[in-house]
Amino acid sequence: MTDLSATTGVTDRPSGTAESVESDPIRRFLDRQRPETPCLVVDLATVRQRYRQLRTALPDARICYAVKANPTPEVVGELVGLGASFDVASPGEIELCLAKGAAPETISYGNTIKKRRDVARAHAQGVRLFATDSAADLAGIAEAAPGSKVFCRVLVDNTGSRTPFGRKFGCPPETAVRLLVRARELGLDAYGVSFHSGSQQQDPAAWEHGINAARRVFEGCAAQGVELRMVNLGGGLPARYTDSTPPLEDYVRGIEEALDRHFGDGRPELLVEPGRHVVGDAGVLRSEVVLVTDACDGDGRWVYLDIGRYNGLAETEGEAITYRLRTSRDGDPVGPVVLAGPTCDGDDVLYQRHRYRLPLTLRGGDTVDLLSAGAYTASYSSVGFNGFTPLPTYCVDGDA
Amino acid sequence: MTDLSATTGVTDRPSGTAESVESDPIRRFLDRQRPETPCLVVDLATVRQRYRQLRTALPDARICYAVKANPTPEVVGELVGLGASFDVASPGEIELCLAKGAAPETISYGNTIKKRRDVARAHAQGVRLFATDSAADLAGIAEAAPGSKVFCRVLVDNTGSRTPFGRKFGCPPETAVRLLVRARELGLDAYGVSFHSGSQQQDPAAWEHGINAARRVFEGCAAQGVELRMVNLGGGLPARYTDSTPPLEDYVRGIEEALDRHFGDGRPELLVEPGRHVVGDAGVLRSEVVLVTDACDGDGRWVYLDIGRYNGLAETEGEAITYRLRTSRDGDPVGPVVLAGPTCDGDDVLYQRHRYRLPLTLRGGDTVDLLSAGAYTASYSSVGFNGFTPLPTYCVDGDA
Repeated sequence: MTDLSATTGVTDRPSGTAESVESDPIRRFLDRQRPETPCLVVDLATVRQRYRQLRTALPDARICYAVKANPTPEVVGELVGLGASFDVASPGEIELCLAKGAAPETISYGNTIKKRRDVARAHAQGVRLFATDSAADLAGIAEAAPGSKVFCRVLVDNTGSRTPFGRKFGCPPETAVRLLVRARELGLDAYGVSFHSGSQQQDPAAWEHGINAARRVFEGCAAQGVELRMVNLGGGLPARYTDSTPPLEDYVRGIEEALDRHFGDGRPELLVEPGRHVVGDAGVLRSEVVLVTDACDGDGRWVYLDIGRYNGLAETEGEAITYRLRTSRDGDPVGPVVLAGPTCDGDDVLYQRHRYRLPLTLRGGDTVDLLSAGAYTASYSSVGFNGFTPLPTYCVDGDA
Repeated sequence: MTDLSATTGVTDRPSGTAESVESDPIRRFLDRQRPETPCLVVDLATVRQRYRQLRTALPDARICYAVKANPTPEVVGELVGLGASFDVASPGEIELCLAKGAAPETISYGNTIKKRRDVARAHAQGVRLFATDSAADLAGIAEAAPGSKVFCRVLVDNTGSRTPFGRKFGCPPETAVRLLVRARELGLDAYGVSFHSGSQQQDPAAWEHGINAARRVFEGCAAQGVELRMVNLGGGLPARYTDSTPPLEDYVRGIEEALDRHFGDGRPELLVEPGRHVVGDAGVLRSEVVLVTDACDGDGRWVYLDIGRYNGLAETEGEAITYRLRTSRDGDPVGPVVLAGPTCDGDDVLYQRHRYRLPLTLRGGDTVDLLSAGAYTASYSSVGFNGFTPLPTYCVDGDA
């Protein structure tokens, strides 16, 4: 493992995962097949392990895999086989889940921004569960998916998240009450409340905000005769990047304590929408070093990879996600580098502030693996930015 | 045209382009064909007009179209027919140009970050002109493309650019001298100097920095017996967004004056690499309004489009490029909006700081056209972010 301790203060302690589970079958594949780079390799065994671990940790929650995190058909198929439900963002993701054998009643249309005809299409396909956070969207659901269950997304504090949501989604609890009461008037099933604590959330206590807000919505609705039944805990559970994150048990404890505090014995039905947590650690992205140069301004080495912000590493924007790295020269003495992508784009720089330390012997043709890169990578590649092809995904099965 | 004057101070004065050339054939296509949204429509007549206009304005410069700006095969084919040369960033772009009939000697491999095997492949295909800015890359060119022409990219001030390059490309003039002298030692043809004044450059005097730096490199090389012959003026010529930009003549005057000042009678061969300037104004991106909501915090309306940062509007990152808009409700009273894309991503917000004013009557199903959206859009779409399909491009020909 490349030494990051100098810049991140991370020790190499796994956060609830065995390194061998993650990397071995993938390395075997990479060593034997030597696929053209860049490419992403996903180990389905890790996907299964993460799903089951969460299943055990939150036995009462319905697990809706956030398909957007990695829509590789094999991953979705694997999760269908395990009995998962699915959180989808678009008609395309609904098609994918159905094509892989998911029952329509396992699908939650979690995007609050939906064309009316897309809602109608989902309804015609059997989808009966929809997120909302505005009167306009709610009216669309009532018209195009009559009688469906709806849950309202509330806006909560995202402190502690590596990629907070800003103001785009969710409404205040008072608005949620109004919308859910209105939902019943429109003939919909006012089902519950959702929130998102922010992706790659590093504070296990962060769910307190959302669960508290949910309780207020439950109370507000009850006061108007509308009995909600469900709290959707959203996503936010972490993958293993360079930051040290608490183990899953800490998150579960934080969630359970908040539920006890706010709902006591009247525990609602629970949904959870993990994406990154299920597939992040299951993937390794192999890249090749294109070039190593000395910066003109004396500010050390630049290492250019054949993977960049536009063909898979979208989440390096603002250096939000800092992947763990492994190189074909690990063990050699290291020094600081700026890491950049291969395109003619000045913004295609991966890490400049977060200064990685990589082997001084690194040169063109060497490999750099980005670990825990299974989430929010391949499907974010551009179709052909600068003429580079999209990142391909290969699946292996460490149990097979 | 939607009123932007309240926020941008722009008058509707065209900057060297007739509105009718830009929009009519495209509107005709959109009105008659009613293609599914979002989509980009490019008018090849405008591409021709822009190329010829630049040809006339800079008669001594070899025009290398920056393929990355819009690699639609029909656009590349059109420019091949007009006798253009091409600036390419990757093997994929070389393949594209050759497939559309470009001669290999019209291709300039302008990316300073190249795998050695990609250089070898380009050389085998007949490409003989390469950019460089580092010793490692130069060694690769010498080995894999022996005897080729090389030009060295110098780093220059990008003030005035909407999307400056940062420190990723280019070296100081002293380094360029060293590299070009070394190039000759390695058996390469030390051809000249390139620079990039920054994309969507709004200051016609900005080329002064690069031309001055080029002269210094010419002098430094001459002192060591290496006579350079070419200055590559790069890109940077603008398209017509909400900002008022000077007419093309002003840029040409700025360039000519700087050339006179620094090169006098010893005028070098010239290259220029327009991308945005050739295709930007040739394209209209049609989108549909998905939803209009009142923000929960009382901060006005949010308009969600079916186009966003991840399916074509990559250049709205940091609100760098502010497209002119046209809606199907133009003429109705307007008010401020936040504009956002359709995905479940908190960063998929197009304009929040730059507050557009759109019709108060706007609602789901209406259309919003982004004008001058022909550059850096379709090929930047993700393959399937959130399950949304990439932006398709249609070509029309306003002269046909």
